[in-house]
Amino acid sequence: MTGDSKLQDISCEENNISSRGSKAQVPLLKVNNCNSVKFGSESCFGAINSEHPDNKQSQGKIVQSVIPKNRYPVSDLPLIYFTQWVKDVFNVDLSTKNVSVSLPRSEDLPEPKLEPEFLLVCAGFFSALEALGLSHSLSGVDRLVRAHGHTLNDMFMLREGHFPRIPDLVVWPGCHDDVVKLVQLAHTYDVVLIPFGGGTSVSGAVSCPSNDPRTILSLDTSQMNRILWVDKDNLVACCESGIVGQDLERQLQEQGLTTGHEPDSYEFSSLGGWVATRASGMKKNVYGNIEDLLVNVRMVTPTGVLQKQCRGPRVSCGPDFNHIVMGSEGTLGVITEVILKVRPLPSCKKYGSIVFPNFECGVLCMREIARQRCQPASIRLMDNEQFKFGQALRPVPSYLGLMLDALKKFYITTIKKFDMDTMCVATLLFEGDHRQVATQENKIYEIVVKFGGIPAGEKNGERGYMLTFVIAYIRVGSMFTVIIEPLGIQHFMISCRVTQTYDVGSCVYFYFGFKWTGLSDPLGVYESLEARAREEILASWRIIISPSWCWQDEGPLVPKTGFRHWSTSVPSHQKQP
Amino acid sequence: MTGDSKLQDISCEENNISSRGSKAQVPLLKVNNCNSVKFGSESCFGAINSEHPDNKQSQGKIVQSVIPKNRYPVSDLPLIYFTQWVKDVFNVDLSTKNVSVSLPRSEDLPEPKLEPEFLLVCAGFFSALEALGLSHSLSGVDRLVRAHGHTLNDMFMLREGHFPRIPDLVVWPGCHDDVVKLVQLAHTYDVVLIPFGGGTSVSGAVSCPSNDPRTILSLDTSQMNRILWVDKDNLVACCESGIVGQDLERQLQEQGLTTGHEPDSYEFSSLGGWVATRASGMKKNVYGNIEDLLVNVRMVTPTGVLQKQCRGPRVSCGPDFNHIVMGSEGTLGVITEVILKVRPLPSCKKYGSIVFPNFECGVLCMREIARQRCQPASIRLMDNEQFKFGQALRPVPSYLGLMLDALKKFYITTIKKFDMDTMCVATLLFEGDHRQVATQENKIYEIVVKFGGIPAGEKNGERGYMLTFVIAYIRVGSMFTVIIEPLGIQHFMISCRVTQTYDVGSCVYFYFGFKWTGLSDPLGVYESLEARAREEILASWRIIISPSWCWQDEGPLVPKTGFRHWSTSVPSHQKQP
Repeated sequence: MTGDSKLQDISCEENNISSRGSKAQVPLLKVNNCNSVKFGSESCFGAINSEHPDNKQSQGKIVQSVIPKNRYPVSDLPLIYFTQWVKDVFNVDLSTKNVSVSLPRSEDLPEPKLEPEFLLVCAGFFSALEALGLSHSLSGVDRLVRAHGHTLNDMFMLREGHFPRIPDLVVWPGCHDDVVKLVQLAHTYDVVLIPFGGGTSVSGAVSCPSNDPRTILSLDTSQMNRILWVDKDNLVACCESGIVGQDLERQLQEQGLTTGHEPDSYEFSSLGGWVATRASGMKKNVYGNIEDLLVNVRMVTPTGVLQKQCRGPRVSCGPDFNHIVMGSEGTLGVITEVILKVRPLPSCKKYGSIVFPNFECGVLCMREIARQRCQPASIRLMDNEQFKFGQALRPVPSYLGLMLDALKKFYITTIKKFDMDTMCVATLLFEGDHRQVATQENKIYEIVVKFGGIPAGEKNGERGYMLTFVIAYIRVGSMFTVIIEPLGIQHFMISCRVTQTYDVGSCVYFYFGFKWTGLSDPLGVYESLEARAREEILASWRIIISPSWCWQDEGPLVPKTGFRHWSTSVPSHQKQP
Repeated sequence: MTGDSKLQDISCEENNISSRGSKAQVPLLKVNNCNSVKFGSESCFGAINSEHPDNKQSQGKIVQSVIPKNRYPVSDLPLIYFTQWVKDVFNVDLSTKNVSVSLPRSEDLPEPKLEPEFLLVCAGFFSALEALGLSHSLSGVDRLVRAHGHTLNDMFMLREGHFPRIPDLVVWPGCHDDVVKLVQLAHTYDVVLIPFGGGTSVSGAVSCPSNDPRTILSLDTSQMNRILWVDKDNLVACCESGIVGQDLERQLQEQGLTTGHEPDSYEFSSLGGWVATRASGMKKNVYGNIEDLLVNVRMVTPTGVLQKQCRGPRVSCGPDFNHIVMGSEGTLGVITEVILKVRPLPSCKKYGSIVFPNFECGVLCMREIARQRCQPASIRLMDNEQFKFGQALRPVPSYLGLMLDALKKFYITTIKKFDMDTMCVATLLFEGDHRQVATQENKIYEIVVKFGGIPAGEKNGERGYMLTFVIAYIRVGSMFTVIIEPLGIQHFMISCRVTQTYDVGSCVYFYFGFKWTGLSDPLGVYESLEARAREEILASWRIIISPSWCWQDEGPLVPKTGFRHWSTSVPSHQKQP
C-alpha cells in the first residue's frame, strides 16, 4: 500500500493539494498537518458562517478577513464593508458559530466495501493491482477527499459527518498506459471506476451510489499532470488530463503561450475535467470554450481507447465523437490525454468596467455588443445585488481613497442621477495587440453610451474579474435559495449575472443565499426551492430576455448525460400495444 | 401515382430541377422536353470533352463557350484562352466528340424491384402509402434522377447507361409529419429509405446497394422547402431541410438577413444536405461552418424523432448529439427541420486578390494570417496550375483591356520579376461594416508584403471567387488523375488550392485531370490513382505544410460514417483467445 505517502503529500507544508506532483508556484491550500485538514479539504465552505477552513484567524473571534492569505488581491485585508453586508443581508449573529463536526479518525470512516461474497474477487483484483505496480490507498482520508465535489450536498455531507458511501480505494495511475491496464482490470473484476480530477465537480459525478454492491475505485488523475509536447508552429499542445488549470497555464506562459481557457474553477480544476464537463471559459470570446479549443482527446473505455487518428482542424465526413466525450462526465471512459489549441500570449491585456442605470439597460447593451460580435475576451454583467456584493468586498481605502470613493459616488448618483439600488456594472477584459484592443474599446464604448452606460475605469473591471474567482471560492458556502416565507426563510439574497453572450442567447448564472439558522432541514429546503426555480425558468424560457440559455448549474434534476435536453418522441401508434 | 406530374416538372421550360416547387428566380438547368434531358440532367459533365448538356451550341461544331447562358459572369462569352488551354494541356482533338448514350425510355430502365416474394408486403406498403396521400412515383426517369450524386462513378454510370440498381420508387413528403409517417411505414415494411436533397452528394450516400433484396425508396425532400419562421431579434431562422441554398439565401436577403453559408455547391445543394454532410462554407471565417451555424435540428429515425428540447446557444451538460446528426449522411435518420443562425446583411462586401511569386510564399502568408486570426470572410490560395486555369477562363478583352493586360503582365514579370510558371494568386472576400473591412484590409496587406505578395485588385478577386462556382460546376467533368506513365496517361493536370485556414492546419483541395481517350477502363485507372494519392497523403501528412488537413474529397476508401478517422484499439490481452 502506498496510501500513507499520498496522505503525507496532502499533509505536507511544502506541497499543495490541487497540484500534487506538479511544481505549482502558487500555494493553493496549505495544511500543516493531518489534524488541521477539515473535511473536504479541497473545498471551501462556510464563508458566510465564517468557518472557512483556511481561516486561521477564526478562533472564536469573528474578524473581517474571509479570504485567506495570498489567495487574491483582497486577501488579508480587513473587509469591513463585507462584514457589515453579511450582517445587513443575512442578519447573522457573528458572536455565535455554526461548528461543523471534526475530521473523524481514519478508522471511524466507512470501511472499504469489500463484502464477504466479493472477497475472493477482491483478492484477485488486489493482487493484479499490486502486480501492475500502481500507487493506491485504502486510507480513510484519502478516500473521503475523493468522495465529493463542490455541490451543496457534498458540503453538507462533510459538515455533518454523514457519509452514506465513499470510494473503497484510491488509485493513482501515472500515465495513459496505466489507465488502460487499470480500466481492463476493473472491467475484468467488475469494479466501479470513478475518475477524479481537480475535485470541483458540481454535477455529482464523483458521488458514490450508496446502494451499489460493487467495489468503487476512485481513479485519481493528479499524477498524470505533464505537458507531453508543445508544437509552437501549429499552436497545439498535448497534455495529460490531470494537469490543473493554473499549472498548465503557468508552464505554457513560460513558453510565451496560453490556452486562454479560464473557467471560474481554473485554479483547482483539471484539463480532463474541463473536457468531461464541457467547460466554458471566461475569455471564450477570444479563445473559445473547451469545444473550440479541443483538437483531439484519448478516452480509455472498457472496450478500447477512443481517439481520432488524425489531428485535422476539422473533418467533414462523419459524426464528431469529440462531442460525445465532451460532457460525458466520466460515464463513458477515462480521459487520459488531450491535444489543445494554444495561442501566443497577447501583447496587451486591459480591464474595463461600465456602470448602467439598471439591469435592463445593461442586458440590452450586452445583446447589441453580441449582435455586432465585438465582445472583448470577457464581458460580464452583474445585477444590482451582485454589484453591492462586489462593493462590499472592497478593502478599507486610505483617506484619499475614501475621498475618491465619495467623489465617484457623487458623480454617479448626483450628476448622472443613477440610483444606487438599481444600478449595475459590467466588467470587461480585453486581450490582443494594442491596435485590436484600442479598436475594440472604441467600438464598445460607442455602443455603451447609447444604452446609458458610463465607463467606470480599469480598476473596477479588474476587481470585478477577480471577484469571479472569489465568488467561485466562497460560493459553495453561501446557501442558494429563493424567498418562500412559509418555509421559514426571512433573510436571503437573490442575484444573477450574465456571464457569456452568444450569437443566439446568453448564459445567465443565478445565485441564491439564505440564512438557515433554525431550519431543521436546510438542504431539503434548498432542494425544493431550487427545483421550483428550475421549473419556473424552464416553463418561462420564452420570456427570459434571451430566448435561450445555457444551464450551467447542476442539480439532481439534470441527469449527468444531458439527455434532458433531448427528446425522443415515439410516434403515437408505437405506444399502443 | 403522381409520378407523371413530377416528370413534367423536370421537363417543363419554366421550372428548374434544383429548386422544384420553390420559386427560384435564377434558372439553373433548363430543359425543353424530356428527350433533351441527358442522363443525370442535374449534373454537368464532359466540359473538357465539350459535351456539356446545357451547351446548345455544341452541334458538331466545337466553340469556345463552355458555360451556359446566364449562369456566371463568363457565360456566353467567347473563351478563346480556355479553348487554347484545353488543347495545350490535354491535347484534345476538338473535331471529334465522345458521345454519351441517350436517355433510355422509361420502360428500358430497371423495373422497380418488387420481387415476387415481397409482393404481399409491397401491396400492404403501397396501400398504406396511398392512404397517407403522399406524392410518389414509379417512373423510370424520376427514379434515375435520384439514383446518383456528383461522384465520378455516378458520371460514368450515366454516360455509359449502366445502372446496376436505381431506387424502386420516389416519394415526396411535404413536411416533418409526412416524414414521420413515411419512416414508420418503411420501418414496418422493411423498406430501405434513402434521403435525397439537392443531388450533389460526392460521398456515394445516394447510391443504391445493388445486392440489397429490399425495396429501396428515395425520399425526396424538395417539397419541404419552406422557411418556417425567422426570429430577427435573436437572429435565428427555422427552415425545412429541402430548401436549396440559393433559394434560402434569396428569401433571407429579402428580409435583410443572410446565413453566410456558401459551400461550393450552394446553388444546388439543400440545407438538409449541408447538415447531413457537415458542410464547410467559403465564408466560414465570418459566419462559421455548418456546425457553427446549426442551433437545432430535427431528425426522424425509425425509433423516434431526435431533437433538442431547448434552443440554447450552448449546453454544458452532456454530449452534443447535433454532432452525431452532422456527418451522418442520412444513415441515422431523415433531417426534416433545421434552426440556423442568421446575420444581418453586411453593409460592405469587397473582393481582393494577391499575387505571390510562388506557392510556398503564399502558403506561409496564409498561415501567418491564420495565426493572427485576421482572415477575411474568404481567403483562398490557388497554385500556379489553377492560376493559369483561371486566366484561361477570362473572356476576350477589348483592345483597351488587352493593353491593360499587357501592362499588368509587364509590371508583374519584368518589374517585379515574377515567373509566370511559378506565381500563384490568393482571392479574398471581405464582409462587414466599412470600418471592419478597412481595418482587415490594412492588416492583411501589411502581412502580405512581408511574404513578397502584391495586391492585385478587386477584379481578380471577384473572378477568383466566381471561379470557385465555375469549377464546382464543371469539375465532375474533368477526369481526376495523377501522372503514372505505365497507365498510358500522357496528358494531365494536377492542381491544388488552400481553401480554408484554421488555427490548427488548413484545408487543401486537390484537382486531377487527364485525357482518357484510348483507355479501356478510365474509371478503374482513376480509382487506382486516387487510392495511391490518398495513401501517399495519409502516409506523409507530417510533411505537408500544415500538419493536419481536412479530407474534403470522398471516394470509396472513406466510409460514409467517417469512422476512418477514429480508431478503437482493443488492448492486446483482449485479442488473445
